[in-house]
Amino acid sequence: MLFQALPSFSASLKLRGYVAGTAAMLLMLYLIAITAEAMTGALSAGRRGMDWFGVVLIACVTALGGGSVRDVLLGHYPLTWVKHPEYLILTSVAALLTIFIAPLMRHLRSLFLVLDALGLVAFTLIGCMTALEVGTGLLVASVCGVITGVFGGILRDIFCNDIPWVFRRELYASVSFLSAWCFLLCQHLQLPEEQSILITLFGGLLLRLLAIRFNWNMPKFVYKGDAH
Amino acid sequence: MLFQALPSFSASLKLRGYVAGTAAMLLMLYLIAITAEAMTGALSAGRRGMDWFGVVLIACVTALGGGSVRDVLLGHYPLTWVKHPEYLILTSVAALLTIFIAPLMRHLRSLFLVLDALGLVAFTLIGCMTALEVGTGLLVASVCGVITGVFGGILRDIFCNDIPWVFRRELYASVSFLSAWCFLLCQHLQLPEEQSILITLFGGLLLRLLAIRFNWNMPKFVYKGDAH
Amino acid sequence: MLFQALPSFSASLKLRGYVAGTAAMLLMLYLIAITAEAMTGALSAGRRGMDWFGVVLIACVTALGGGSVRDVLLGHYPLTWVKHPEYLILTSVAALLTIFIAPLMRHLRSLFLVLDALGLVAFTLIGCMTALEVGTGLLVASVCGVITGVFGGILRDIFCNDIPWVFRRELYASVSFLSAWCFLLCQHLQLPEEQSILITLFGGLLLRLLAIRFNWNMPKFVYKGDAH
Repeated sequence: MLFQALPSFSASLKLRGYVAGTAAMLLMLYLIAITAEAMTGALSAGRRGMDWFGVVLIACVTALGGGSVRDVLLGHYPLTWVKHPEYLILTSVAALLTIFIAPLMRHLRSLFLVLDALGLVAFTLIGCMTALEVGTGLLVASVCGVITGVFGGILRDIFCNDIPWVFRRELYASVSFLSAWCFLLCQHLQLPEEQSILITLFGGLLLRLLAIRFNWNMPKFVYKGDAH
Repeated sequence: MLFQALPSFSASLKLRGYVAGTAAMLLMLYLIAITAEAMTGALSAGRRGMDWFGVVLIACVTALGGGSVRDVLLGHYPLTWVKHPEYLILTSVAALLTIFIAPLMRHLRSLFLVLDALGLVAFTLIGCMTALEVGTGLLVASVCGVITGVFGGILRDIFCNDIPWVFRRELYASVSFLSAWCFLLCQHLQLPEEQSILITLFGGLLLRLLAIRFNWNMPKFVYKGDAH
Repeated sequence: MLFQALPSFSASLKLRGYVAGTAAMLLMLYLIAITAEAMTGALSAGRRGMDWFGVVLIACVTALGGGSVRDVLLGHYPLTWVKHPEYLILTSVAALLTIFIAPLMRHLRSLFLVLDALGLVAFTLIGCMTALEVGTGLLVASVCGVITGVFGGILRDIFCNDIPWVFRRELYASVSFLSAWCFLLCQHLQLPEEQSILITLFGGLLLRLLAIRFNWNMPKFVYKGDAH
């Protein structure tokens, strides 16, 4: 998807040097993001005592599920992992590695919170860009950004039979939504794509880390009425 | 989807006056239905104590998920909410409104049962029509009607980690199925589309309300054998 | 899907007699497999006390869901059951029949384990072949084989609000994965398609039955860390 995106990026920018830089940065962020998400998926599978095969599948669904849902909803084929099967290998290796380094994972908690936040914003950016390429309007592009950002985690929780906690954690989905609109606003102001991306990345990451640090939360809606 | 449907409707009818009337009525019913479904989705999210963002997402999935699943299965792009993002706004506003009027909701229970029944039949009708447009046979059209009618509720329950109660409530899915075949039969008898729609709406609504009133249920299948 | 597959099969084989034989055998295996999977789906629905309509829907999802997910991910339309609605009838009839013969089912446990194993390998084979037809590489083809083989069961468990046990049972998903690679290897060695299919079927079935008999399991990953 990133490689597909390149031609249209370069067409819309004057300085080819920037393009290569931006695309390479986004690709690097994407690879970090799917690796980190695969590892959180593997840990979730481990909490349910799944076998190694289940661990790999949950990891792939967590890392690549958000983008797949977005592409299926947009009818945007082929899916990323069909075009780039090497991403399947990367996420599978990350999942298997997680099994062996699991005892270390609790010491890496802070690192993973940062990587996860980075992944959230990077996924959101890529989701917005893909939607805009396909020709959707701004609102749908922002929704596609959020879907790309959070649906991997939602699918992971559904597969592991948890209530998706994406909606119960410090501003998680909200950071994705605000990042999407930050990027779309920057683009609307006709900033160069590279600047839009960098502003969104720093803004989104900062907001998410502040939310974790100070335990900011969206207000919750608690309803005690009868079911149905 | 409704607007897409218009040309083919008008081509198949002689009196253009009827067309506008039928399409406008179906659109109005569709808007009522997605609003009511969004509100039931928001209440389900509230029962799980989700944050506002989660409430909006569950509401959108409940209201627009059935049609999205149908369109993805048929390869019928673009999806309704991609073509008409205003529906996303409508369902989001309905969800946020629900948070504030939640204390009143228990007094509106009867109203919501009627709106929900209306939505079920309207969704089913629209699902059948979309499938027929795409060129499926009658059986697949009826299945697409049921998918459109009940999958929003199924997805809501999966996201909220409940067992889908669509299959455990008074004739819910069955009303959808019978409505689909009522419409297809009317069409087969070459009744004008408007009449087919009206007959199905009244029949389906009546059946659902009678089922609620007299607590009619499909027989249940209870199996106590070992799992696997 | 099987009928669609025929022309390309025949093009790739010299002996037309073999083609008819292989395709007929695969079709027969496919019909046995969807019937057996529909019945296991119906039993799962019965364990949750669903009504008859729910039983039929869970049965259809279990039997046809794996292939549908694969085709949606590949953008391979129309889906099997849209093209061949008779498969919907077959799975529905099998589901309703299961309701009546449920008391006998515990005596047929061994038979069902064999049929289920046969279905797993047949689904995997068909998934691989479909992916290769669409033009994917070998890795994606093997993934499509596994998706076709195990996703029906995963969807069944998600709909019934269970943790997918596909990943916790004797080599289930692993047999699918190894069957896929066995077939792809045979094809790579340019064996005739019929031989590749037969070798894979016998090998996969044998491995699965041995795994059940001797209770072979993939190692499990058990992680006790905090959630998130």
